[in-house]
Amino acid sequence: MIDLVLVGAGTGHPDHLTLQGVRALQEADLVLLPRKGAGKEDLAHLRLAMLARHRPGGLVAEVDLPVRDQDLPYLQGVELWHDAIAAAWEAAVRAALPEGGTVAMLVWGDPSLYDSSLRIAARVGWPAKVVPGITAVQALCAAHVIPLNSVGNEVLITTGRRLREGGFPADADRVVVMLDGECSFRALAPEGLFIWWGAYLGMGEEMLDMGPLAEAGARIFEARARARAAHGWIMDCYLLARTA
Amino acid sequence: MIDLVLVGAGTGHPDHLTLQGVRALQEADLVLLPRKGAGKEDLAHLRLAMLARHRPGGLVAEVDLPVRDQDLPYLQGVELWHDAIAAAWEAAVRAALPEGGTVAMLVWGDPSLYDSSLRIAARVGWPAKVVPGITAVQALCAAHVIPLNSVGNEVLITTGRRLREGGFPADADRVVVMLDGECSFRALAPEGLFIWWGAYLGMGEEMLDMGPLAEAGARIFEARARARAAHGWIMDCYLLARTA
Repeated sequence: MIDLVLVGAGTGHPDHLTLQGVRALQEADLVLLPRKGAGKEDLAHLRLAMLARHRPGGLVAEVDLPVRDQDLPYLQGVELWHDAIAAAWEAAVRAALPEGGTVAMLVWGDPSLYDSSLRIAARVGWPAKVVPGITAVQALCAAHVIPLNSVGNEVLITTGRRLREGGFPADADRVVVMLDGECSFRALAPEGLFIWWGAYLGMGEEMLDMGPLAEAGARIFEARARARAAHGWIMDCYLLARTA
Repeated sequence: MIDLVLVGAGTGHPDHLTLQGVRALQEADLVLLPRKGAGKEDLAHLRLAMLARHRPGGLVAEVDLPVRDQDLPYLQGVELWHDAIAAAWEAAVRAALPEGGTVAMLVWGDPSLYDSSLRIAARVGWPAKVVPGITAVQALCAAHVIPLNSVGNEVLITTGRRLREGGFPADADRVVVMLDGECSFRALAPEGLFIWWGAYLGMGEEMLDMGPLAEAGARIFEARARARAAHGWIMDCYLLARTA
């Protein structure tokens, strides 16, 4: 019998971890560490450093994750990919913890926001708990020292894909864009839009930029491409606001 | 010269505090504790318990907050209220820290989301930093063990007022409703909507309910009214999703 605890790890600052998260790591029988493959070694090191600090010598199982078939239609590819990840988790945990117990996993950001761990846990059939963590949305606003919403107004959280397909929503005031590998703000008419952008939020390499989209857009696109090439990977997000 | 650090305190679980938040409290010369008046004593006790644990004996200044004039138009009332709060902060800090220094404040949830502290700090003219914290949005999803978004889709964060005025947005998939003192979901046609609701998230008194809005709505409305009467205050929020 396995109980799973998904621990929101924050966005890359080791002190984004909450006291509740520290306790969950310390109380787990095993920490499962999925490896996302080449170019993400920085993140893997960060998680190992968190574990060395908070549960030195504790049992850890690393698991290599399968990759998503990019040739399939998006949702179908995701389904098959999640099946494969679930099988990999199950095999790794069975090997490391044959008698069962509590398994913790560190999830970047928060397990509720654009993360698949809960859906994969449901496939395996393990009962899950969640320890909430700092999302990139909070980390972006904290780094820029700005509110997410304008007074009394709403905020839309969306993806690069949807921004490219649908444009800046006609009735939106502020829009957070995540999962955007393509600087999809380039697909927008920039007039009347302001952008606050951040990458590697909370990490030593943190990059920030902001300004009217018409001026800042190209600058961010170039800086992002350079940083991605230098590091081998990048995680970024941004907030767009109407200024008109 | 005053430097302000706004520390996201999470939603009421003392261990929602991040390691970064603990450090900010410990390094501050003064912690400013606004008192929100009658009925919020539970929350005031929680903050004092956090300070006793993380910076025992440290300098603290409590400040009674003025109340918003409910007879003025909303935005105008908020402007005047923020001016009055800024003056109260300034007076309290000048008295407690006449030579200047670093002032920390605990903000429920995260300083970026439906919180006025950043806007008030700008009025006073103090340079501010933000330590991000767990919002009610993450705490709600964690308590229900659910993802916030459906796969690849967007999420709208809005207020009770806007939900009442505009209804469930026609193109929305999932909507989080905050700042809702009136169970504004009652203004919606409930068919095809599912609700996950939570109050006192992370606290010992935590209440959760969920279900098709047509069934759960009245139950939540009654439970909320009873809890509010019993405690003297309530903080709650909810996630609505289309099920069709």
